[in-house]
Amino acid sequence: MRQRNKPWADDFIAEHADLIIPAPEKHRGKWKEIFGNDHPIHLEIGTGKGQFIAGMAEQHPDINFIGMELAKSVIVTAAEKVLAKEVPNVILLNNNAKDLRDFFAENEISGIYLNFSDPWPKSRHEKRRLTYRTFLEQYEDILIEGGTLVQKTDNRGLFEYSLVSYNQYGMLLEDVSLDLHVNEDPMNVKTEYEKKFSAKGQPIYRCQVSFQS
Amino acid sequence: MRQRNKPWADDFIAEHADLIIPAPEKHRGKWKEIFGNDHPIHLEIGTGKGQFIAGMAEQHPDINFIGMELAKSVIVTAAEKVLAKEVPNVILLNNNAKDLRDFFAENEISGIYLNFSDPWPKSRHEKRRLTYRTFLEQYEDILIEGGTLVQKTDNRGLFEYSLVSYNQYGMLLEDVSLDLHVNEDPMNVKTEYEKKFSAKGQPIYRCQVSFQS
Ligand SMILES: C[S@@+](CC[C@H](N)C(=O)[O-])C[C@H]1O[C@@H](n2cnc3c(N)ncnc32)[C@H](O)[C@@H]1O
Ligand SMILES: C[S@@+](CC[C@H](N)C(=O)[O-])C[C@H]1O[C@@H](n2cnc3c(N)ncnc32)[C@H](O)[C@@H]1O
Repeated sequence: MRQRNKPWADDFIAEHADLIIPAPEKHRGKWKEIFGNDHPIHLEIGTGKGQFIAGMAEQHPDINFIGMELAKSVIVTAAEKVLAKEVPNVILLNNNAKDLRDFFAENEISGIYLNFSDPWPKSRHEKRRLTYRTFLEQYEDILIEGGTLVQKTDNRGLFEYSLVSYNQYGMLLEDVSLDLHVNEDPMNVKTEYEKKFSAKGQPIYRCQVSFQS
Repeated sequence: MRQRNKPWADDFIAEHADLIIPAPEKHRGKWKEIFGNDHPIHLEIGTGKGQFIAGMAEQHPDINFIGMELAKSVIVTAAEKVLAKEVPNVILLNNNAKDLRDFFAENEISGIYLNFSDPWPKSRHEKRRLTYRTFLEQYEDILIEGGTLVQKTDNRGLFEYSLVSYNQYGMLLEDVSLDLHVNEDPMNVKTEYEKKFSAKGQPIYRCQVSFQS
């Protein structure tokens, strides 16, 4: 599937180098220059088709958003959504979140979003989960003091795992919801997966955590 | 409702002073004498009609169980269940869990169960929730090092609150389940409320936490 789209996606990405930034390691510690201002920078990992980041950028013009997404065939759709909304405060990175320290300096990021991350349910794949300890270490390094990580997911196993992982890492659990769309905050921006799974009547889990100094 | 049963319940309780122990403060630090052995002691708070504690006592003959229950009209039913099972390793206390330090010495308890505790949903009643900070302080005092607290509930608001409260108190989250009866452990002993709510198709939440030294 993904291969079929690739030639077109490669061309699209090359043509939009001001939105899908190539070689992000060059901008490490200097992302504010790309955005042209000092606003806080929030990072979404696994942006998918971009509904969340485009909606958040529109809702929060004083925050800069970086969306990181591995799959070329998907990041182009995210780029199209950002272009359609004409929001100036988003850029996208077609990279793997396992190398965050290569792309961001310490304290460069003020908030992180993990939306409907791949669950990797098998124990032998635990290390691939975006809430595994080694990922948390990276997040701690790049986040400012008091910066928060917000996770949303429909996946019960991943959420159970993540709550334990955050706690055992020593993170502070600031807020947790086990059914986000009951008494939903009208400011909540839904992702593509969130829309799909909540339409099926599944509960959406959410939590907000931070690192303790 | 409760008043109607009271005269009968008072008599029943007086007649079963070897099972529903009066004046528990007299036995503080000396519960092993009551049980006649050195087995670890587990405490259930809000025992209700006793299905859990009677079932656990049968399943774990090498653990001694103490069930604390405030309501006279309910504790008599628990007593009847314990008598019917003829389990020697259970006693009941008709007392309020806000005074645990009066009844138990430091390190006297090895495990605590909170099953379907009253949710007290209004914020102004937060202090009455059995997972409020002041209750956690008591649990920490009476529990041995490494002793665990296991909570089960159908109440989403209480469970969300409790996860945050445990975390902010610095407790270790050892395990969490957001739908206990999916892949249910065959050893899980159901409480009356658990049976009722899971029959309605509601998810049952469970977690196991401990205090860090
Ligand atoms: C299940 S989808 C969810 C997409 C979107 N967040 C949503 O909620 O609709 C997960 C996305 O994360 C991307 N992804 C997975 N692992 C990644 C990684 N290590 N770095 C960057 N993106 C990743 C996948 O390519 C996929 O698009
Ligand atoms: C909702 S019922 C649950 C009963 C049982 N645990 C179950 O799961 O079926 C809560 C019980 O806790 C008791 N309770 C509430 N607060 C208490 C306290 N501070 N000390 C002792 N018992 C209490 C109530 O009387 C009631 O029987």
